[in-house]
Amino acid sequence: MKPYAEMTIEELHEEYMHLRKEYKKYQNMDLNLNMSRGKPSQKQLDLSMGLMDVLNSDADLFCEDGTDCRNYGVLDGIEECKDLIGDMMENRPDNILIYGNSSLNVMYDTVSRAMTHGIMGNTPWCKLDKVNFLCPVPGYDRHFAITEYFGIGMIPVPMSPTGPDMDMVERLVSSDESIKGIWCVPKYANPTGYSYSDETVRRFARLKPAAKDFRIFWDNAYGIHHLYDLDQDYLIEILAECKRVGNPDMVYKFASTSKITFPGSGISALATSSNNLEDIRKQLSIQTIGHDKVNQLRHVRFFGDISGMVLHMQKHAAILRPKFEAVEDILKKNLEGLGIGSWTNPKGGYFISFDTLPGCAKEVVAKCKKAGVMMTKAGATWPYGRDPFDTNIRIAPSYPPLEDLKIATELFSLCVKLSSAKKILDEKKAEAEGKEE
Amino acid sequence: MKPYAEMTIEELHEEYMHLRKEYKKYQNMDLNLNMSRGKPSQKQLDLSMGLMDVLNSDADLFCEDGTDCRNYGVLDGIEECKDLIGDMMENRPDNILIYGNSSLNVMYDTVSRAMTHGIMGNTPWCKLDKVNFLCPVPGYDRHFAITEYFGIGMIPVPMSPTGPDMDMVERLVSSDESIKGIWCVPKYANPTGYSYSDETVRRFARLKPAAKDFRIFWDNAYGIHHLYDLDQDYLIEILAECKRVGNPDMVYKFASTSKITFPGSGISALATSSNNLEDIRKQLSIQTIGHDKVNQLRHVRFFGDISGMVLHMQKHAAILRPKFEAVEDILKKNLEGLGIGSWTNPKGGYFISFDTLPGCAKEVVAKCKKAGVMMTKAGATWPYGRDPFDTNIRIAPSYPPLEDLKIATELFSLCVKLSSAKKILDEKKAEAEGKEE
Repeated sequence: MKPYAEMTIEELHEEYMHLRKEYKKYQNMDLNLNMSRGKPSQKQLDLSMGLMDVLNSDADLFCEDGTDCRNYGVLDGIEECKDLIGDMMENRPDNILIYGNSSLNVMYDTVSRAMTHGIMGNTPWCKLDKVNFLCPVPGYDRHFAITEYFGIGMIPVPMSPTGPDMDMVERLVSSDESIKGIWCVPKYANPTGYSYSDETVRRFARLKPAAKDFRIFWDNAYGIHHLYDLDQDYLIEILAECKRVGNPDMVYKFASTSKITFPGSGISALATSSNNLEDIRKQLSIQTIGHDKVNQLRHVRFFGDISGMVLHMQKHAAILRPKFEAVEDILKKNLEGLGIGSWTNPKGGYFISFDTLPGCAKEVVAKCKKAGVMMTKAGATWPYGRDPFDTNIRIAPSYPPLEDLKIATELFSLCVKLSSAKKILDEKKAEAEGKEE
Repeated sequence: MKPYAEMTIEELHEEYMHLRKEYKKYQNMDLNLNMSRGKPSQKQLDLSMGLMDVLNSDADLFCEDGTDCRNYGVLDGIEECKDLIGDMMENRPDNILIYGNSSLNVMYDTVSRAMTHGIMGNTPWCKLDKVNFLCPVPGYDRHFAITEYFGIGMIPVPMSPTGPDMDMVERLVSSDESIKGIWCVPKYANPTGYSYSDETVRRFARLKPAAKDFRIFWDNAYGIHHLYDLDQDYLIEILAECKRVGNPDMVYKFASTSKITFPGSGISALATSSNNLEDIRKQLSIQTIGHDKVNQLRHVRFFGDISGMVLHMQKHAAILRPKFEAVEDILKKNLEGLGIGSWTNPKGGYFISFDTLPGCAKEVVAKCKKAGVMMTKAGATWPYGRDPFDTNIRIAPSYPPLEDLKIATELFSLCVKLSSAKKILDEKKAEAEGKEE
């Protein structure tokens, strides 16, 4: 089929009528499918059921160093867990703080602490007239929700396949003291699946911020979440690179096991410089006596070491890969060459990013919903939930079973065609009327 | 033996010399005991090992309502857990929010949220010139650490066996808009073990705060932590009483299973009015997707229901009771009638509060430490760690095995005698010299 834009009004009208009929069929199917959130599927959760067996009442719940994991204490996390997560995050165990079940919570607390107490002796952000964050777009809605909640201004920065527009990042960060942070998902980014290039990471590490308390919020949520065994993205490790170029304190790096074992019942961690850690411990020791050490031990015993974790991730990949491929195949089959949408083909992570023609995203998502398929809200990938172009849609293929996913993606591409055909048809008609007048 | 104050200088000198000899003996015993923190003992932790068995890989990890506890979601906590904790806290499940592993963390977050966003539409505390909390003393050092960390002023209010001085509380709360909260441990208080009387609770519920955003921080840490089965303290439930007298939103009530199952690996909860809950959910939904539901389910399955939990607490009591009784017996045997110290005899909780003669507490704790017994730092029970009278010492009998505890308490009472004898002797000598001159 030729691109919609090249069709005549008649051809496009016919196509549109056909699409409407197809859409009716889906409406009659009484679908109830969800592609809205990056939730692991039940099959993926089943992979970690062994986690429930490693600690039973016969188990030794003591650490190597004699710590009884059942009692109070150990603010930083148990040593063996810092070892494991250090390997996972590619950081020294000494640079790691193990937290509770949610890295989002760690990020929130990090911003909250900067608001009330400032970073390393600098003015608390709540005492400043203006605080801004850079927000690569499309990005992660829950990041933007945190900064919005604290009244922090958000400046969108365009993403490309190599990462955020670094010219813009460098210019803004070096010139504007109100810019205190940037939200990054550097690997298999949410939602594009892009991974930052070596040059991007190097340029991040070499930033010369106007604000002494500028921090990169490096949410490495998908650090080991590959879809393939050989064809993987690899990133320069940001903490090490920052240290090498004399910027050791500029990064807070976050990760969790949410999409490794059980979301909500895993462990999260922060990796950062010893200066930052010292700053953070002062607050953390007021906030808590320590996080869940039994669960830390449970994870350590379950994986053994990082190679155990990597093997485990291959099982996730075996479930996720066919889903990503199915979505990509269906999008290609239905939309390629029509000039009405583009999408990413990530090698890892949890999302595919889709761009419609300008002004179509909301309508596509609404049409999907009306036919029983829930997509992430259009606009969600932009600060304040407002996509100025109304183009970006996040596709989350992980949760539905493969067969459901296929139906949902067929419907999704149909909705893209419907909205696009309508839009182009309207434009062509308006143009034609303009000529007649 | 007669009271030290009634002894002659010679008698007291002889006693002092004898005590020094005794102290030397303890120093030679090379002790290394810890009575400093309210930590459960290993035997108590062993009581909950069954918790490790209730969920294995064959277990059904779904809630009654079909929620898969292994996946994301359920901000408030699973229904069956709200049921159980509702029974534990004597509140409706609908008034309960289940949190992570630490009620201290919940309290910190509650203060932090009030600082950055205010309570129910009121001015954020960080925007106010002055914020103050009332602090019943002696009290819990970690409470005071939170308010100190946020720069909140702390006004000590004397405790009595019926609770805080309510005349003072009423006067201050109703007249001073800068007073935004009060730290309460209403039952088996930390460290006195006192429980608030019915009148005290009623007067709390009837407070008429000058500040619209005044909240009672009701840390019911020892709600079911009785030492006896029949001789228990019982409190009027504060949320219900507040609701009855038209003050429904005035209380945040906190609790956890830290001293029921495993400290650090349990669950914590907040109970409060639906207005407060709505206010809190707005923030909580930004901070996290949800807390550890698998652990919630684990606790529900382990206890079954509240009667299971009560039976479990009786096992704790059986371990703790002899320890409390041993401490009380030894204090009585060694100190009764000497006029140099007083102590509480609680029916529950984790602490005994000891008051030395004015100016002796620090020295007693230092002497204990020098002979190998770690006590809670003197002053810790007061805001900023400063006890203006230098009298209060918190005794935590739970952690050491019974035999060690007996030795530690013998040493402790010896140190009390030593410091007191020295103090009175010095006073008597100074008095005698004064007469001679």
